[in-house]
Amino acid sequence: VANTHSTEPGRAGLVREIALAEKLADVARRLALEYFRRPLAVETKLDLSPVTVADRTIETEMRKLIRAEFPTHGIRGEEYAAESGADETWVLDPIDGTKSFITGFPLFGTLIALVHGAVPILGLIDCPALRERWIGVRGAATELNGQAVRTSRCAHLREARLYSTSPDAFNAEDWSTYDRVSRGAALRRFGGDCYIYGLVASGHCDLVIEASLKPHDYFALVPVIEGAGGRLTDWRGAPLDWNSDGRVIAAASESLLAEAVEALRSD
Amino acid sequence: VANTHSTEPGRAGLVREIALAEKLADVARRLALEYFRRPLAVETKLDLSPVTVADRTIETEMRKLIRAEFPTHGIRGEEYAAESGADETWVLDPIDGTKSFITGFPLFGTLIALVHGAVPILGLIDCPALRERWIGVRGAATELNGQAVRTSRCAHLREARLYSTSPDAFNAEDWSTYDRVSRGAALRRFGGDCYIYGLVASGHCDLVIEASLKPHDYFALVPVIEGAGGRLTDWRGAPLDWNSDGRVIAAASESLLAEAVEALRSD
Repeated sequence: VANTHSTEPGRAGLVREIALAEKLADVARRLALEYFRRPLAVETKLDLSPVTVADRTIETEMRKLIRAEFPTHGIRGEEYAAESGADETWVLDPIDGTKSFITGFPLFGTLIALVHGAVPILGLIDCPALRERWIGVRGAATELNGQAVRTSRCAHLREARLYSTSPDAFNAEDWSTYDRVSRGAALRRFGGDCYIYGLVASGHCDLVIEASLKPHDYFALVPVIEGAGGRLTDWRGAPLDWNSDGRVIAAASESLLAEAVEALRSD
Repeated sequence: VANTHSTEPGRAGLVREIALAEKLADVARRLALEYFRRPLAVETKLDLSPVTVADRTIETEMRKLIRAEFPTHGIRGEEYAAESGADETWVLDPIDGTKSFITGFPLFGTLIALVHGAVPILGLIDCPALRERWIGVRGAATELNGQAVRTSRCAHLREARLYSTSPDAFNAEDWSTYDRVSRGAALRRFGGDCYIYGLVASGHCDLVIEASLKPHDYFALVPVIEGAGGRLTDWRGAPLDWNSDGRVIAAASESLLAEAVEALRSD
């Protein structure tokens, strides 16, 4: 089974790392809620996604805590330059869903991953406004607020409840593909940022198909989804690494992943 | 000012009606949370929107309470046949956002309106999972959980943060129009059901443009938006009534409404 390799340490081997990830998420949650729904100077980055003072403040605080606890680890975040380190790299997205954040939409979240080489071994999705936190550890069951969760095990595309954050995250060709594939699902919905991956882990929806994700978006999702019995891969069904093209599938089961991969490629 | 007609009663003239609306929302919230994220038999209606046991249970309970308090009032709900009555009609959507509800997405809500003739004089949006409730009364300031709220007053489309629940709620022609208009906004996002109208009332986003809404979807929104200083109309800027075509605009200001109406018609 993909999520129980005997070479992986599970929770027992990552006690300090898990404790740090929780601490990072606590700090991020407190700061995010200080800024959420308050007037902000909204800047515009070159890629036109809005970024807030909150984003930078949170990443700065998280980097300090990581350096203090694991000075040899690398850090890659959304906001600041990468700090290279040993085999272990923390990958941070202080506020995933900045557009949601600046419009008062409560489904934004903080994403934290610990990546060994190119393999994410710890992932955390925290949704401050909803006080929901998923933690996934390679080789252990994913937990939501301390309770084990599992995917729906939905096995077929025609029965799958499908989410994607926005049509605007696809280029024209990918949108055309997505549009065709999604019409074969039981229902399709938009909106949600990282929260919809938590919904897959918890079994409330079955499938997410997105594009344009970056390592700080997708690495944290892998242990969360796979530790709940699902699969998170690129559109070809291959594992995500640093050089993935940003097109991802989160599926409640191996069978659903296979059907989604097949549908996405049969143009 | 549109929301302070001297002929309208405000809160003082609607004490019993407001108390009943709150009671209906309390019951709906309790029942909705009993069913939310629990396994359900999901039926499929003729129009293909999923409907849950929760939906019917809630509407049945709300109808009982209305008949007990105001036996002469009419009732129109999403689930059951209309009960005609005097000039006053309660218009109910027990679970707005059934697709959100069945996928664990927490932004579904309950919509309650009291309509005098064709004029909504009281509107309530309750979001059980988030414990947020907007109440609007014609001639009074809209409140969120007891605190007065106001729209952003955003005056221009190019500065507007725009929401719509789903591209799939538009027919092809309306989608083409929406797509063009929305690209003139500062940003566009999808997802949210009734919750995004609450976000307009509270000033977190500025504009919602949708289609395919029914009276039980839109009547409750009117007093909420207008009591916060915004405008809620059809795509031509005309007030909504029983026979509106289901295409609505919620705008943070009169000026933004005018720009949206102009943009929607200039094909």
